[in-house]
Amino acid sequence: MPSFHHIDFEPLGRRGACPANASLLEAAQQLGVALISLCGGAGTCGRCKVRVLSGQVSPPTASEQELLSAKELQEGYRLACQTYALSDLKVHVPPESLSTPQRTQVESQEVAVTPEPLARGYDVRLALPSLADPRADAERVLQALQEQQGVACQSVDIEVLRGFAALRDAEALRVAVRGGEWMAAMPAGTRLLGLAVDLGTTKIAGYLLDLETGGTLASRGMMNPQISYGEDVITRITRTHQNPSEARLMQSLAVEALNQLALELTAEVDAKPEQIVEAVVVGNTAMHHLLLRLPVSQLALAPYVPAVSQALDVKARDVGLRLAAGAYVHLLPNIAGFVGADHVAMLLATELAHADGLVLALDIGTNTEVCLNDHGQMTSVSCASGPAFEGAHITHGMRAATGAIERLRLVDNRVEYQTIDGAPPVGICGSGILDALAQLYLHGVVDRTGRMGEHPRVRQRNGEREFVLVSEEERDGSPAITITQRDVRELQLAKGAMRTGIEALLQAAGKSAEDIERVVIAGAFGSYIDVSSAVIIGMLPALPLERFSQVGNAAGAGARLALLSESKRREAQEIARRVRYIELATVPNFQRLFASCLYLGEINHKDTKTQRNVKS
Amino acid sequence: MPSFHHIDFEPLGRRGACPANASLLEAAQQLGVALISLCGGAGTCGRCKVRVLSGQVSPPTASEQELLSAKELQEGYRLACQTYALSDLKVHVPPESLSTPQRTQVESQEVAVTPEPLARGYDVRLALPSLADPRADAERVLQALQEQQGVACQSVDIEVLRGFAALRDAEALRVAVRGGEWMAAMPAGTRLLGLAVDLGTTKIAGYLLDLETGGTLASRGMMNPQISYGEDVITRITRTHQNPSEARLMQSLAVEALNQLALELTAEVDAKPEQIVEAVVVGNTAMHHLLLRLPVSQLALAPYVPAVSQALDVKARDVGLRLAAGAYVHLLPNIAGFVGADHVAMLLATELAHADGLVLALDIGTNTEVCLNDHGQMTSVSCASGPAFEGAHITHGMRAATGAIERLRLVDNRVEYQTIDGAPPVGICGSGILDALAQLYLHGVVDRTGRMGEHPRVRQRNGEREFVLVSEEERDGSPAITITQRDVRELQLAKGAMRTGIEALLQAAGKSAEDIERVVIAGAFGSYIDVSSAVIIGMLPALPLERFSQVGNAAGAGARLALLSESKRREAQEIARRVRYIELATVPNFQRLFASCLYLGEINHKDTKTQRNVKS
Repeated sequence: MPSFHHIDFEPLGRRGACPANASLLEAAQQLGVALISLCGGAGTCGRCKVRVLSGQVSPPTASEQELLSAKELQEGYRLACQTYALSDLKVHVPPESLSTPQRTQVESQEVAVTPEPLARGYDVRLALPSLADPRADAERVLQALQEQQGVACQSVDIEVLRGFAALRDAEALRVAVRGGEWMAAMPAGTRLLGLAVDLGTTKIAGYLLDLETGGTLASRGMMNPQISYGEDVITRITRTHQNPSEARLMQSLAVEALNQLALELTAEVDAKPEQIVEAVVVGNTAMHHLLLRLPVSQLALAPYVPAVSQALDVKARDVGLRLAAGAYVHLLPNIAGFVGADHVAMLLATELAHADGLVLALDIGTNTEVCLNDHGQMTSVSCASGPAFEGAHITHGMRAATGAIERLRLVDNRVEYQTIDGAPPVGICGSGILDALAQLYLHGVVDRTGRMGEHPRVRQRNGEREFVLVSEEERDGSPAITITQRDVRELQLAKGAMRTGIEALLQAAGKSAEDIERVVIAGAFGSYIDVSSAVIIGMLPALPLERFSQVGNAAGAGARLALLSESKRREAQEIARRVRYIELATVPNFQRLFASCLYLGEINHKDTKTQRNVKS
Repeated sequence: MPSFHHIDFEPLGRRGACPANASLLEAAQQLGVALISLCGGAGTCGRCKVRVLSGQVSPPTASEQELLSAKELQEGYRLACQTYALSDLKVHVPPESLSTPQRTQVESQEVAVTPEPLARGYDVRLALPSLADPRADAERVLQALQEQQGVACQSVDIEVLRGFAALRDAEALRVAVRGGEWMAAMPAGTRLLGLAVDLGTTKIAGYLLDLETGGTLASRGMMNPQISYGEDVITRITRTHQNPSEARLMQSLAVEALNQLALELTAEVDAKPEQIVEAVVVGNTAMHHLLLRLPVSQLALAPYVPAVSQALDVKARDVGLRLAAGAYVHLLPNIAGFVGADHVAMLLATELAHADGLVLALDIGTNTEVCLNDHGQMTSVSCASGPAFEGAHITHGMRAATGAIERLRLVDNRVEYQTIDGAPPVGICGSGILDALAQLYLHGVVDRTGRMGEHPRVRQRNGEREFVLVSEEERDGSPAITITQRDVRELQLAKGAMRTGIEALLQAAGKSAEDIERVVIAGAFGSYIDVSSAVIIGMLPALPLERFSQVGNAAGAGARLALLSESKRREAQEIARRVRYIELATVPNFQRLFASCLYLGEINHKDTKTQRNVKS
């Protein structure tokens, strides 16, 4: 028996040789795969679940027999801390088992598409001009392109010509062509790059791609600097309405953030923003409009009409982006005032349009968009879930950063938690907040209505009850980290909004929650949450956990697909055309539905069986 | 007999009722047709020649019998001051009979083409958005356009969307569409306008057109403000080379001049620059490049390579022009570094490409371009004629303005002259300078080599000879207006350059000057000159005068044709492709040819018969 086995963790694609005497958890840690392990490998928390796809492993331990169902064991699910490789292995890591050491908000599925970018690069050799051959620069290049590469080009971007002086004496040149337009000139052999951006209300995720290979060369996340003008889109729109010059300021903040992103991403791979010939930006309709300097006031007023829905190709310079001379920005289509191109991108990446049966897809964010595909009929709603799950408006809430409690559970009146980077706790971020509410409800600390009852960790402060997660003593005298009664109310509004959207879609389709065959959860926050917590509080319908999949930043993945592939752009346009949009406020019995969704736990369906299963 | 007749002066299109007892000269003056009349209607100068096309007139007087040939009288030519209408009339005014009271440099042939502009306007009615119909602004408009007008539009200019807020509540809208792009939005019924510009080295001529009717609504001329950076293109290019920031400055000077022109032209017809959806600008290659902020240094260095030759469509905003939201500027193709889009426009307007036989066309300016069409084979050269004929570098030279001597002749040692606006003489402008040189040569004051000899009006001043046109006494003590020996040398260089171009073309075609069947003279200066003076000094070949035609600002007319008609643009591109360019410096025996062209009088051809005719 060799002392090492080769272990391949999928879908991350991280693989390497690991000592035979290391558990899969230790192997994962060695390879940088951040599995969740609340109990530190004791086999008690049950969170390091993985699925062995091929190869031989040690038999299940007593802990595993207890924490995994017979069906799970049969399907190859194991606890990584209890399992040892007996041969080379291929292991699948479900998203819910991944911790989140790098909160760059850029993790997403690999983008698998044959690159067919709109902009392509061609190298041409050039003869120097002479009195016998005084052809103009542009004609010299375009004729060489035609003769040497067989590429016909009708037009030239004016900025290419303006910048051409620097390349006049070159003997060879890389010519970037897009749709019959010569749109950039570079030294021969220069790699053509593309930039895909998910411009979120709170966060911006950027990806730098090699347009020829389709490979993602670098990715990076940053906060949306518009946050200083309001945490949600309505606040920002209201600001622009009150003071139109602020729209201009917000636009330039976003644009400068994207320019910075382009600089940092290209610097990572020793390239320059001038190599970026195309960008695809997706965002909700308000972010889309603010970026393009389109009017936004009307987005906040019924009937919430966008300035434009169709896909747009805009010169990067007309937006203020400093990329290649004649670079374009492609904007995927919007669906409605509150269902934007990011939703289309998510649907594109998750291939929801191709799904069979009844499938639900959510992109959880400051605004949550939900789409139900009922055997081909796609319908979407937008829910104003707000930034509570991003830590805003929560007493000790914080963004996902070092020291944030990101996972917790209540065990015998003790709070077991995990913080980002394992640092001493300083606050609680979205996934921790969600866990906290689920645990409080599960242990009867709050009831269905959200009222906080008695518990050894519940106390009265400033006229309201609060549950102590980390006490003053545990923090060596620093203020305690708590969840207050008001926090619970805030979270009920957020989860109620999301669930109302889901129920409105089911209602419109004449379906019940249990009919849903698959739930796709997209969005940075959505990929970090413990789905069972979301189910416990009733944010998501009570379905068997295997029906859920967390796909990370699918909007970003969709942007990358559109960047690489013209046919994916057409598919996105087809999606935007096919999706029916429901304005939540116009749904019959909206008020009653929303009220019932505010309750914690599964909502009051006839089929209480599902609900019992969840709570058991 | 009625006491009034209706008289129609063509091709100016000025018409009206005139008293029966008024001569045609008086009728012309009443209608604002500025006929030349050196003798004040005495019937002695023979300059107010017109041609009666239809209607009855008084019989020829003795003066007319003397000053007009039998053939001219037979063809209907008359002296306007001697002729009285006996019925309604249609009268043709040859360009050489027109004085120039308004030196706007915009006079040119009428533009006769069926308007088929690229940008067209459509009115659409719009339903207001509602919760039941929350379509985006752009989709609402584009669907209405499709349904109500059957026009399919794929893309929208981003600036249209940015400015659309102001029109959101309109029930009807005028949509401007160009090549499948929605490129401007205006109140319903707004007239779509076009701007044609001849951007000369010295002067700018602008024309405002109604794109639907094709009519010229207003025209206006102004000086090119770049003149402060040098009177000729080489000086300006050298300045940009020495100090690149000056290129930027020159560009903005030209752009701001065009913006001003657009403002003034639209104000004349109670319109706004935002109604201008398309502009066509023609100019020489250097003016073209400076306007577009293209590199120009290489234009002044062999092999004189332009940055681009092909026709360009550029967004007006990318040049800095403030027109309609998504307006375009079309640039006609250049031919070479010194034969630009203005030459192409001239060839387009004069229809030289369609001419039979051997036809010569010249656009006289600071740079003079000459094209010879030899039975379909067009060849062009560029001659650095310089600004002498625009009054620069001439001791008492001035631009065509009030008080400038514009016509003169030497009669019995007296100088008879005509000034602009009939004001007291203050200097001498191009056409007057040309007349002066011709008269001095004709009367033997200067010999073939240009040397000034003895004459009662020749005197010595500051070490050189000068011919006194208007003496100190005649000017009540102000300095005399003279032509100096140095002026004669300067003019010899200018006329020599032009004639060298003509001879080089004839030489390349294996033809002689007398083979030329027609000579088309374009350009503002070209339309004011007395052709016989130009022939006398040998600037133009000695051909019968009826072979010459002066067509005014043909480059401006070509710009207007291209503005109105897509097929005229294609024709311009075809012209640019067909024209063969000869670089004068590469012509065999260039130096010898140039030297022989410096002589005054017809150059030394074998066929001296033609020469004798001219001098007789």
